[in-house]
Amino acid sequence: MSTFNDRFLKACRREETDRPPVWMMRQAGRYQKGYRAIREKYSIVDICKIPEVCTEVTLLPIEQFGFDAAIVFSDIMIPLEPMGISFEYKPGVGPIIHNPIRSKSDVEALTDLDLGSDLQYTATALGNLKASLNVPCLGFVGAPFTLASYMIEGGPSKSHILLKSFMYGETEAWHLLMKKLAHNMAEYLLLQVESGAAAVQIFDSWIGMLSQEDYQEYVFPHMFDMVQYLKGKTNVPIVLFGTNTAHLLQDFKRTGADVIGIDWKTDLAKAWEAMDYEVAVQGNLDPTSLFAPWEVIERKAKRLLDSIPNQAGYIFNLGHGILPKTPEEHVKQLVKLVQEE
Amino acid sequence: MSTFNDRFLKACRREETDRPPVWMMRQAGRYQKGYRAIREKYSIVDICKIPEVCTEVTLLPIEQFGFDAAIVFSDIMIPLEPMGISFEYKPGVGPIIHNPIRSKSDVEALTDLDLGSDLQYTATALGNLKASLNVPCLGFVGAPFTLASYMIEGGPSKSHILLKSFMYGETEAWHLLMKKLAHNMAEYLLLQVESGAAAVQIFDSWIGMLSQEDYQEYVFPHMFDMVQYLKGKTNVPIVLFGTNTAHLLQDFKRTGADVIGIDWKTDLAKAWEAMDYEVAVQGNLDPTSLFAPWEVIERKAKRLLDSIPNQAGYIFNLGHGILPKTPEEHVKQLVKLVQEE
Repeated sequence: MSTFNDRFLKACRREETDRPPVWMMRQAGRYQKGYRAIREKYSIVDICKIPEVCTEVTLLPIEQFGFDAAIVFSDIMIPLEPMGISFEYKPGVGPIIHNPIRSKSDVEALTDLDLGSDLQYTATALGNLKASLNVPCLGFVGAPFTLASYMIEGGPSKSHILLKSFMYGETEAWHLLMKKLAHNMAEYLLLQVESGAAAVQIFDSWIGMLSQEDYQEYVFPHMFDMVQYLKGKTNVPIVLFGTNTAHLLQDFKRTGADVIGIDWKTDLAKAWEAMDYEVAVQGNLDPTSLFAPWEVIERKAKRLLDSIPNQAGYIFNLGHGILPKTPEEHVKQLVKLVQEE
Repeated sequence: MSTFNDRFLKACRREETDRPPVWMMRQAGRYQKGYRAIREKYSIVDICKIPEVCTEVTLLPIEQFGFDAAIVFSDIMIPLEPMGISFEYKPGVGPIIHNPIRSKSDVEALTDLDLGSDLQYTATALGNLKASLNVPCLGFVGAPFTLASYMIEGGPSKSHILLKSFMYGETEAWHLLMKKLAHNMAEYLLLQVESGAAAVQIFDSWIGMLSQEDYQEYVFPHMFDMVQYLKGKTNVPIVLFGTNTAHLLQDFKRTGADVIGIDWKTDLAKAWEAMDYEVAVQGNLDPTSLFAPWEVIERKAKRLLDSIPNQAGYIFNLGHGILPKTPEEHVKQLVKLVQEE
């Protein structure tokens, strides 16, 4: 086994690195031939729940592309099942919830995770991964708001009317739901850390649907509590990511997260400057740009790299998860470009 | 007929008004009982193409709520039909294009509008409306980028992979498409102005999918040309609107548009300040907030109004189109609140 590559962890802690570390959100996925072959035999839930398969899938992109970090294969919905949420993945749509949250009693009925027995498959996979990898492996959860959006809407949504009606109209139940999710997801992250995760990421994919005013009133206190609770229990880096969050980045920083993920629409260099370089940043090439001819991708990646100020704490990533059908060759070339930086 | 209410036009020109004018994007729509009754007899396309019905539908929200501006009922896809694009509206999905743009020859095959004969129904409706209304009526079009997104994707899209692949990979054809759309939509707006529109709005709903770098390279020159061409031909105010545009507002201003529509996620007061008050601004209550209890809506609307600096040129609106199922009573109360400001 070669020397442990801690470039990613160093960047998270804003320590100098020889070059920016590189990984990609959803880096194990449908765009890979190897992943599609495994998916012929196993469902997404199978992959999450069978530690050997989970380990194999998580390792795929590391072996194929030489990323500087792995991320355990799972899905943000997985920990909701032992809390009492029943769902299925509808191809081309996303998770569909059979028993959406519609009242305070629905929130009260959610059970706390029992991490002595629940979600042990993720723990086992993370143990395997720690033994196999020479790069750090991230654990992750969905953020309370994004999980609540699925739980209340019953699936993906364009306008989030049910979610916001609940938030504005059943405010006490809303805060109880946020609190329960923040607590249980924090505990699940701690299980992942104990099992081998060297860093954690909180995905708040839909948070950009909220104005800053609403974020501060309905969400921030729970994110702050969640991050601070984690920081009291572990010193692994905490990455916080969302999309359409240009207006929320200062509040993201105030949660105490170590690394802020920047979506592809926000100018990363300007956003970092606005946060006074007091956090590390991760991002932010447009995942759709990987469908362009290589010369266009190369120009965009070089422009991004050139725009990064001479500060420690930059992690190269896409500005959102890699898309199915992304050409594998372009991923390979892009990783090589960053590695040769 | 009572005195003409030019509060909206004054605000567009950054002249003092007694109170902010108020109207709402998509203010004639499914949330209205009166609109739903008309839709039982007529399709969306019927309403757009039968001037009497179009006039009736456009007047509905003015009569019901007393808005300070009307907007002619139509759809951004309507002018694409005489250019050679065939489509239908799929309920719950949106426009589906039968012959999407996939090559340069598809772009070349698009025909220019013949405004001596095409789209006369909109012109007739605008003439009727001018005679009936004592508030200004807006004309509108979809912006070239947003129209192109439908034309290339073949319908609504989450990731816009086809659109961006075309933009990055078939760049010459892309610019030709933008140029054709900018030219034809500008001409269609001029027809609307000649027919009675006292202001025009360009809806660039999906433009927030682009980074600023891509906007500047692939879209801005066409928007600049379009707005400047219009300004050379007419002096009616030009409103430019998009969502998720926090990073694009300075470029919106540089097009020369008179009014910038702000989505509900951007802090309107800060955005206006950043544009040095050199344009008028319109927005930006979250349309989803109209599903909240009235006390919440009231608090949000008052906070928004209180945040507006003492500068001429503010137009109250939602931060995106009003949603189906919005309670009519809340619209009524909200308009009253602004009127009593």
